[in-house]
Amino acid sequence: MSEAVEKATRAHEAAATLRTASDHQRSDAIRRAADAVERATDRIVEANAGDMARARAEGMSEPLQDRLLLDERRVGDIARSMREVAAQPDPLGRVLLGRTLASGLRMEQVTVPLGVVAMVYEARPNVTADAFSLCMRSGNACVLRGGSAAHDSCAAIADACRQGVEQAGLPGDAVQLIDATGERGHAETEALMRANGLVDVLIPRGGARLIQSCVRNATVPVIETGTGNCHVYLHATADPLMAVNVTVNAKTQRPGTCNSAESLLVDLEAADVLLPPVLAALAERGVELVGDEAARSIAAAQGVPMGAATEQDWGTEYLALKMSVHCVSGVDEAIAHINRYGTGHSEAIVTSDYAAAERFLAGVDAAAVYVNASTRFTDGGVFGLGGEIGISTQKLHARGPMGAEALTTTKYLLRGNGQVR
Amino acid sequence: MSEAVEKATRAHEAAATLRTASDHQRSDAIRRAADAVERATDRIVEANAGDMARARAEGMSEPLQDRLLLDERRVGDIARSMREVAAQPDPLGRVLLGRTLASGLRMEQVTVPLGVVAMVYEARPNVTADAFSLCMRSGNACVLRGGSAAHDSCAAIADACRQGVEQAGLPGDAVQLIDATGERGHAETEALMRANGLVDVLIPRGGARLIQSCVRNATVPVIETGTGNCHVYLHATADPLMAVNVTVNAKTQRPGTCNSAESLLVDLEAADVLLPPVLAALAERGVELVGDEAARSIAAAQGVPMGAATEQDWGTEYLALKMSVHCVSGVDEAIAHINRYGTGHSEAIVTSDYAAAERFLAGVDAAAVYVNASTRFTDGGVFGLGGEIGISTQKLHARGPMGAEALTTTKYLLRGNGQVR
Repeated sequence: MSEAVEKATRAHEAAATLRTASDHQRSDAIRRAADAVERATDRIVEANAGDMARARAEGMSEPLQDRLLLDERRVGDIARSMREVAAQPDPLGRVLLGRTLASGLRMEQVTVPLGVVAMVYEARPNVTADAFSLCMRSGNACVLRGGSAAHDSCAAIADACRQGVEQAGLPGDAVQLIDATGERGHAETEALMRANGLVDVLIPRGGARLIQSCVRNATVPVIETGTGNCHVYLHATADPLMAVNVTVNAKTQRPGTCNSAESLLVDLEAADVLLPPVLAALAERGVELVGDEAARSIAAAQGVPMGAATEQDWGTEYLALKMSVHCVSGVDEAIAHINRYGTGHSEAIVTSDYAAAERFLAGVDAAAVYVNASTRFTDGGVFGLGGEIGISTQKLHARGPMGAEALTTTKYLLRGNGQVR
Repeated sequence: MSEAVEKATRAHEAAATLRTASDHQRSDAIRRAADAVERATDRIVEANAGDMARARAEGMSEPLQDRLLLDERRVGDIARSMREVAAQPDPLGRVLLGRTLASGLRMEQVTVPLGVVAMVYEARPNVTADAFSLCMRSGNACVLRGGSAAHDSCAAIADACRQGVEQAGLPGDAVQLIDATGERGHAETEALMRANGLVDVLIPRGGARLIQSCVRNATVPVIETGTGNCHVYLHATADPLMAVNVTVNAKTQRPGTCNSAESLLVDLEAADVLLPPVLAALAERGVELVGDEAARSIAAAQGVPMGAATEQDWGTEYLALKMSVHCVSGVDEAIAHINRYGTGHSEAIVTSDYAAAERFLAGVDAAAVYVNASTRFTDGGVFGLGGEIGISTQKLHARGPMGAEALTTTKYLLRGNGQVR
């Protein structure tokens, strides 16, 4: 039996106990795990130092190294965000629907845990604690496979979580970490993706390649997350200053995140007014620009460098200081372009026209659609959902930021006195 | 381009129009389609006669022939159930959540269509009309692949649906039927399962082989439906008469349906009292019995024939007048057995003990859990959900009977006045 299947089996068994664990027990397990993480700070930082040394030796890029790094302050942040999840209201046992059927059967639809949540992620070791907390809050066991580069850090955190769970009187097997290092790591991940009957959902969190590999290869249900080819569309009636602020924020505030904008659309009829200040502000912040012919001629007149955009650019998530610029004939063409090239993550219009705003909100097919605001707000914390296990860009089960509620399913309970059909 | 991909592309384009179609337009399309179905009764019955003749020549079994058959009355039933779906309240545009974020952004989470729903089913041509109606009610385009034996019947119904949609001023491309006949049928189905970006969800409806093939081979999101290895558990405190009524109803009222019971569990301590009348009633109705040693010795003492159950029996959905019988030590063993061998469909306990009832409701991991009632009630119509496109036995997105609401997703709308992060 592979390690992944063995651990998924143990998680599946632990899930049977978690199914009937109380609100208090589940919160308590997270709080005790947070305490254990804090107590283990030295051990976690030491394990991380080992991961960091290997990563540096293997030439990991600076931004990835920064994601991998844990110091005392960051471990404290991890514990704090665990306690925030512990304090969230219970997502379980909510009655969504209740009625008495014609036969006299009393029916209730209540929220219950999914069972076993598998999570595959990359170099950020804090995801280990986030995923554990949200899974435990919602009564789920978790099987975690972090990036191989972060293995020792993840293992130290998972150990502490396990301790907390056991101290709360729940099965430590509710937290499973799969060794992703070495040759075997890949085979184990494949086994996890195909553990039907043991894994209720697989959530990949990371780059587009990781996510697409899960979507293509998994036979267990997958929730696609995070790929964000987001647009800002400047309607002809946009306030020019707001157009600059929203575009610059959406593109440059944190360009490596999935809710950052990659592409700027602008109404052709107003492009000569709206584009120049926006392009100047972007260029000033070091954003590389590519665009269609109309945009390039405006940029050229201004002396702002802009390469020629290819068909591929419209569909590319740069995750960097680069942006494509495309002129459109109006809101309908903007919606069509976004629905064709976007990834259904976050899309924004800047406009002062009521009808255009409502048409954009209704017509764009995405998890979050904004009027006169930056796409950067799409986030579980900002939306008030508590922590976030990922941002779903698919439509099934959960769409947009996923908190603990997204890790629940429902069950119909029917109480009768001998009813038959 | 394969036929499936071409038709999914057209459905995807039609879905963009449906996304903003009004409640009235979508209901109207279904009502006009129902009228068109009625007007086409002769043509549908004639097409069905051709399918029936081929099915008989190819030796299709009597029960399957009955599922395939359409006469004037059954076409009338199809139109009536379409009108019932048209009369359902609009599942779209419901605001599930609304708040103002710290930044002043006003956030709403509203229900919206999934987009394109693909459905793969077998010999029942009426599923064509059911699937179309529920998809149209919820603003979705549909790509339907019925069984090859029912092709001409399905095509005649789909033609009428398309007419109705066009008469309502919506794109006829919202209804697509894929030719499932001949060699190419299999390849087309495979192409449909892998049409990522065009198909938002695939719902297989039919036998376990069809469903497992979709789960294993599809790369688009799938909702598993319908496999039902359901149990009736007789707790030691069960009322003996109720035990007989519930078991007989759950097993024999319509043994070919997924919500029928396949396995009987009974507390060992009361088996000599509870089992004899139940076994006698089952045997009288021609139910073939297999059981464990304890059950067999009780059956033998009574002169009721009971074969030896194998491990495989516990996991088998007979869909026939056959039932396995297993003695357990109490409610916890019953729950563990059900969670191990069941398919998460419908499970029932018969008991007069409050604690046992609540423990069973909480501990069993299934879409519908019954106390003192037959498993046969699990049905979208009976649950008051309107029509039903299938019964989900997975936990993601929808669990249990799926009506039009299960064919929606959500979208966050955020209205601001220039907010940036």
